[in-house]
Amino acid sequence: MRRMSLRPENAQQARVLRLLRGNGPTSRAELGESLRLSRSKLALEIDRLTEQGFVESDGFAASRGGRRSSIVRLSRTTRFVGIDIGATSVDVAVTNGELDVLGHLSTEIAVYEGPTAVLGKALELVGKLRAEGVATDIHGAGIGIPGPVSFRDGVPVVPPIMPGWDQYPVREAMSQELGAPVLVDNDVNLMALGEHHAGVARSVDDFLLVKIGTGIGCGIVADGDVHRGVSGSAGDIGHIRIDDDGPPCTCGNIGCLEAYASGAALARDATAAARVGQSTYLAERLEETGTLSAADITAAVAAGDPTAVQMLRGSGHRVGQVLAGLVSFFNPGLVVIAGGVAGAGHSLLAEIRSVVYRRSLPLATGNLPIVLSELADAAGVVGGARLISDHVFSVSGGAEER
Amino acid sequence: MRRMSLRPENAQQARVLRLLRGNGPTSRAELGESLRLSRSKLALEIDRLTEQGFVESDGFAASRGGRRSSIVRLSRTTRFVGIDIGATSVDVAVTNGELDVLGHLSTEIAVYEGPTAVLGKALELVGKLRAEGVATDIHGAGIGIPGPVSFRDGVPVVPPIMPGWDQYPVREAMSQELGAPVLVDNDVNLMALGEHHAGVARSVDDFLLVKIGTGIGCGIVADGDVHRGVSGSAGDIGHIRIDDDGPPCTCGNIGCLEAYASGAALARDATAAARVGQSTYLAERLEETGTLSAADITAAVAAGDPTAVQMLRGSGHRVGQVLAGLVSFFNPGLVVIAGGVAGAGHSLLAEIRSVVYRRSLPLATGNLPIVLSELADAAGVVGGARLISDHVFSVSGGAEER
Repeated sequence: MRRMSLRPENAQQARVLRLLRGNGPTSRAELGESLRLSRSKLALEIDRLTEQGFVESDGFAASRGGRRSSIVRLSRTTRFVGIDIGATSVDVAVTNGELDVLGHLSTEIAVYEGPTAVLGKALELVGKLRAEGVATDIHGAGIGIPGPVSFRDGVPVVPPIMPGWDQYPVREAMSQELGAPVLVDNDVNLMALGEHHAGVARSVDDFLLVKIGTGIGCGIVADGDVHRGVSGSAGDIGHIRIDDDGPPCTCGNIGCLEAYASGAALARDATAAARVGQSTYLAERLEETGTLSAADITAAVAAGDPTAVQMLRGSGHRVGQVLAGLVSFFNPGLVVIAGGVAGAGHSLLAEIRSVVYRRSLPLATGNLPIVLSELADAAGVVGGARLISDHVFSVSGGAEER
Repeated sequence: MRRMSLRPENAQQARVLRLLRGNGPTSRAELGESLRLSRSKLALEIDRLTEQGFVESDGFAASRGGRRSSIVRLSRTTRFVGIDIGATSVDVAVTNGELDVLGHLSTEIAVYEGPTAVLGKALELVGKLRAEGVATDIHGAGIGIPGPVSFRDGVPVVPPIMPGWDQYPVREAMSQELGAPVLVDNDVNLMALGEHHAGVARSVDDFLLVKIGTGIGCGIVADGDVHRGVSGSAGDIGHIRIDDDGPPCTCGNIGCLEAYASGAALARDATAAARVGQSTYLAERLEETGTLSAADITAAVAAGDPTAVQMLRGSGHRVGQVLAGLVSFFNPGLVVIAGGVAGAGHSLLAEIRSVVYRRSLPLATGNLPIVLSELADAAGVVGGARLISDHVFSVSGGAEER
């Protein structure tokens, strides 16, 4: 069954669906109160939503004195898919209508192998989840990619680490394959949406999510919506220049934040330190594996290696320098630190906090929590499901969709 | 007549008022089409708006075949007031309902003299405009102040250059005095609103306005709305740290953008240059007046003094450094440069452009105009009128107001 065009018919129906997504099974009495709809008007909309397969009945609520109110819920067969494409891995999750994760698979990829190979692997994972019975009828998918995206067109735009992806019609191709509506966004935006929906930013409408992984990016949520910027590149903070005499960056410039503080920069510095004998821990690790990654540094930090701790603090210091300015500028209510390097945890966080609290405007930091991501690897896929459910649960061409 | 509580009764009426504000006198036929209201429904709303004194009839439109459609306009007596309080001056303007400026007066003040003295002078200017017959019945006022504001409470919050203003109830006090609703905002936010309404940012919904005056601040417009941040301090970029060994700043820290690039910093550097004989132009000026201001530098630049040109370029360079990061982060569609120092014009602008275009993400600058303010001294007062008209032309407690 193709669901491409199935959307609610009016704003009332869209509000019913979003309320059920957030609250789970709800009595008609409560729905009517929340939405300020009369019993008869609500019944009309629920009848239409039932006919379209969006909702179903779920028994009766406990009596509140009069007639027992029947309970409505999103159809048990509602399925959203979140796909999170990273530089070296792809995560696929399937959720129900309430966005609970029912199945989550992950596999290694190399994003530079191009869209056909990478999207093929994502589809394989969707197929596996389908075969396991987790997903049958897919209502929509939200896909995150590690680079700038034209959200309107659903295509990557000059993504630096993704040769072959520029202007590739990800949305159209995947929508064809899945037989369902698809939206494409930057991976960090999806992580921010995920934390906003079900993580540490649940009650916060203005916040920043900084992902420190192979690269460094920032998701911006303003007034409850992702701010994507006019070219879809908002939050691309990895190439903010820290100084004019810094290390060379993969982008061709020098002194970028990423060249100092990303997972790739840490791996580079760890290798150098191992080679000159600055750290026996890292030297042994290099000997064993032939190459060092950011994960080796976090392991070294966990083992108490002073050189690795110093490196991680250095990364936190540089991230803090950039973030201090962004906090003064944006005055967020929360900063979330995420990504592989953030896995190293509290010594990184302590350094970032120290720099931001010292350097940002006091008014902007007076009540500013800086915390680690709660959902970790699930943030992106939950954000993807959230993004596409916002779309599916809105009126086609309606004003609610921005 | 007290207008404190006069607001449209429903969203339809609010839309009529905002449409008339933007378009001027409009035929009922056009209004009905734009708002998708039937002739009878529209007539009903216009009758109510006429009774309340919001709108009036304005003759008949040319026939389009059938019956001639009557023209509706905002009441000719509608008056909004914009008040722009700066560090050293206050501007007051009165507009009609369409926000055309009918009268504009300015006087020197010292903002550190405190709210009673400064607001008193603003009220004197309002009184003069009233005496001239420009303003009779005031429908509302928007007030900008040079510091952080709690927009919700209408009070300044720890404003650094405004001793005595912290938590002063500016909104309540002025609302009492004027007998009309008042909103208070940061001065740079109002300038951004002004340029958005009637200046260079008319068609742009995501832009930054950077004011380089005695201090340095930034107005942020995201998706057509001012982004104020959770403490009202968003855009306070003057104290972003450029480096750790820079000149001392008035805020007590070192190396802030303002300590390098503000009008106050330029005046400090000009005085030093005059004293050591680096510039005969500035030395003569200092001899004449005993003190140098940013205005002396812009005069020196206009006269071709190489030292002054160098200083102004230095200011542009530092502003460009900070702005480059903010452009990568926010990905705006336009950057507007405003404020007293911007009066020096194109050599400043050229330097800012050069740094931003070189250092920001190419995707973010690919189609990014960086231009001078169009409204100059009128931006703040027009923005004030716009702000309060948005409030007066919205439903009380309505969802349109954010």
